[in-house]
Amino acid sequence: MPYGFQIRRAILDLVRRLLDSTGHEEVLFPLLIPEGLLKKESEHIRGFEDEVYWVTHGGLEELDVKLALRPTSETSITFMETFWIKSYRQLPKKYYQIVSIFRYETKATRPMIRLREVTTFKEAHTVHETFEDAERQVLEAIEIYKKIFDELGVPYLISRRPDWDKFAGALYTIAFDTVMPDGRALQIGTVHHLGQSFTRAFDFKIQRADEKLDHPWQTSYGISDRVVATVISIHGDDRGLALLPSIAPVQIVVIPILSGSSEEKEKVLIEARGIANRLRSSGFRVSVDDRDWERPGAKFYYWEAKGVPLRIEVGLREVESGEVTVARRDTLERVQVRVDRLEDEVRRLLESVEDGLKERAKDDFRARILRTSRLDEAGEWVESRKGVAEVPWCGREDCGLKMEEEVNAKILGTPWPHEVVEGLSCARCGAPAVAYVRLAKTY
Amino acid sequence: MPYGFQIRRAILDLVRRLLDSTGHEEVLFPLLIPEGLLKKESEHIRGFEDEVYWVTHGGLEELDVKLALRPTSETSITFMETFWIKSYRQLPKKYYQIVSIFRYETKATRPMIRLREVTTFKEAHTVHETFEDAERQVLEAIEIYKKIFDELGVPYLISRRPDWDKFAGALYTIAFDTVMPDGRALQIGTVHHLGQSFTRAFDFKIQRADEKLDHPWQTSYGISDRVVATVISIHGDDRGLALLPSIAPVQIVVIPILSGSSEEKEKVLIEARGIANRLRSSGFRVSVDDRDWERPGAKFYYWEAKGVPLRIEVGLREVESGEVTVARRDTLERVQVRVDRLEDEVRRLLESVEDGLKERAKDDFRARILRTSRLDEAGEWVESRKGVAEVPWCGREDCGLKMEEEVNAKILGTPWPHEVVEGLSCARCGAPAVAYVRLAKTY
Repeated sequence: MPYGFQIRRAILDLVRRLLDSTGHEEVLFPLLIPEGLLKKESEHIRGFEDEVYWVTHGGLEELDVKLALRPTSETSITFMETFWIKSYRQLPKKYYQIVSIFRYETKATRPMIRLREVTTFKEAHTVHETFEDAERQVLEAIEIYKKIFDELGVPYLISRRPDWDKFAGALYTIAFDTVMPDGRALQIGTVHHLGQSFTRAFDFKIQRADEKLDHPWQTSYGISDRVVATVISIHGDDRGLALLPSIAPVQIVVIPILSGSSEEKEKVLIEARGIANRLRSSGFRVSVDDRDWERPGAKFYYWEAKGVPLRIEVGLREVESGEVTVARRDTLERVQVRVDRLEDEVRRLLESVEDGLKERAKDDFRARILRTSRLDEAGEWVESRKGVAEVPWCGREDCGLKMEEEVNAKILGTPWPHEVVEGLSCARCGAPAVAYVRLAKTY
Repeated sequence: MPYGFQIRRAILDLVRRLLDSTGHEEVLFPLLIPEGLLKKESEHIRGFEDEVYWVTHGGLEELDVKLALRPTSETSITFMETFWIKSYRQLPKKYYQIVSIFRYETKATRPMIRLREVTTFKEAHTVHETFEDAERQVLEAIEIYKKIFDELGVPYLISRRPDWDKFAGALYTIAFDTVMPDGRALQIGTVHHLGQSFTRAFDFKIQRADEKLDHPWQTSYGISDRVVATVISIHGDDRGLALLPSIAPVQIVVIPILSGSSEEKEKVLIEARGIANRLRSSGFRVSVDDRDWERPGAKFYYWEAKGVPLRIEVGLREVESGEVTVARRDTLERVQVRVDRLEDEVRRLLESVEDGLKERAKDDFRARILRTSRLDEAGEWVESRKGVAEVPWCGREDCGLKMEEEVNAKILGTPWPHEVVEGLSCARCGAPAVAYVRLAKTY
């Protein structure tokens, strides 16, 4: 719907700005991928074959070749890169697109979290001459994603996913997870070093600086509409949304409190609209709620639910005193502000709401991470929906899978960047630990 | 590809700006439409059933309900409107979205002109209390589309499509057509008065101001990626693209002409980069082509093909004389400009290129419209790919269809707004004419 889409547009602008300014070029690839192309990389298709939607008919005719709705675009993009990229001189190459991707989910769907159509998926695909340059790109992508989530006040853990849970076709996957208010972890971004899996499968070769022909290296990374879901869930409260001023479609709502004679009402309305126009011309996004069939209390409630950072109340008393009441959405505090100092005060208050929401989210997040050497403690933490538990781990897959079973949770992976662990024993098997591993209930 | 997508982004920004500023709200609806929903409006589905792509499988399972890739979104949007809109107080309501739509074309496809996936389709959908208000909306939409095409320098004819060629489910369709360089007409935008077809089919009712419940009225209108195709085809020439400065991803390319000693080369490079930076800081979009493995001639050719409006050549002579050579893409003229007056001159030249390209397109367009009372003359005009012919018409469908057959062309419709025709006879049957009708070869 429109209001939600405006929030999404603000987030898309932020993502575009950060990708454009780091040399990523926006492109647009077809939705439909012919079956043969999707199946070229065998590990990749094994990872996706249960979840691909197939188009089989055009009009009343059956198609000669089945067409997949893209579950992701590595195959179609690599296919075109074989025509477009011939030389190391063109590298590194960084493409991105913002499109819908499709998964035939058999689990229950949830708005913006688990969907069959993942809308405005921001997927980046890069090509490099060497393994090392692709690894450098993984770091760049992580830095970009940090900035995106920092600007949106969404706290995160960065984990290297265990091998059994990496992207189908990747050498390794680095993932961003946040913790939702119900204590479950939510994957909000992933970065994959693809190695040469796809360039080999498509026999995509370039001329290297040393004049040899070789398969180049790739990375890919993506953020879905979950970023919208987290911004809503993490900053909101029982009254509804609480939006960061930086992405709020309406930063300030002005509510005229109409009472007394019709002349007095008119006076208040004129003052309210005047204030709104002044604030607009200072660059703020402002609405005036002058609906005459709603009472002020209902309007307060309505705009609080929509998460508008500041509410300005203008009544007869305010018109006469030269002061207005300003209420902030995050703390629900109300303060008196002189109208002649309104712009400065509003600017200060908006900054304070922005910082306040981000700080609150960070504090909440910190309290949700438990580090312990005992698996039963970790299990209790996770089971009671407190958040993420970190325990020492020997690094063996079978031990990891058994941990997941015993704790009835999922392994998010090990902390990234890698943290050296010395003198600790695996919380499950007692063998020397090589890393902490993160356990959580997930979406 | 990236360069093309930047042109598209500039056009999308323009469309969004004009729709947003006239109270249209951006939304995002699902791609997949269940068969039952698509088939609710019987005329609509009859118009589309040969061209709909069907998703029949998810993973390895057959779906219970077939899902259509949206050929357009009237059905899914009207379905949701029944939940969202209850009262005249919410009207008029204007939604739009920018998405891919799909048609299983059996005719030969052409890039950006006839595609199975029509990308970044800008479709608007509006709801109104009365027939008249919907008609007023048709006028508003036409004004918006005029502005879009005027700003892009794309000339157009506005026609009321004949009844046999209107949108499936509409009361009537107003269409924008341009004429491509090969003399064929290309539909570039359509506006439909939908009447109550869809609101009846979905039993969508609102409370009117007079408290009665009734089906509201709708319009819809759309512009496809053909707008990109026309901008490229109409302004381009045998050397390639010629882009309007307002939408050119690169407005100015600076080309250092390297010769002499390496010290002299360095001097020229520094000067070229300095000029580019100065122009950038004045707000122009500038590239420097400092590739050392390409010759100046090859670079000229490359950037001409990309349609960059201005090229600045910087050589040793220029560095010493304090003047540079500026070449414009539209007329290919070259002028000397003093470096200390560069910003002003470049601004003036860009405006001149913008106006020049638009004027040239308008002049070409005017020469492509022939008004005649003789059908054979009209036929010759169209057959020799000169453009559009207008002949008097009695208004009868059978006579129109026979005209199409005899002239071997398509009827675009009658001029909009309606032009009163008196004392003329139908070019085919001789009966009194009610309007001119436009005939053309089409894409």
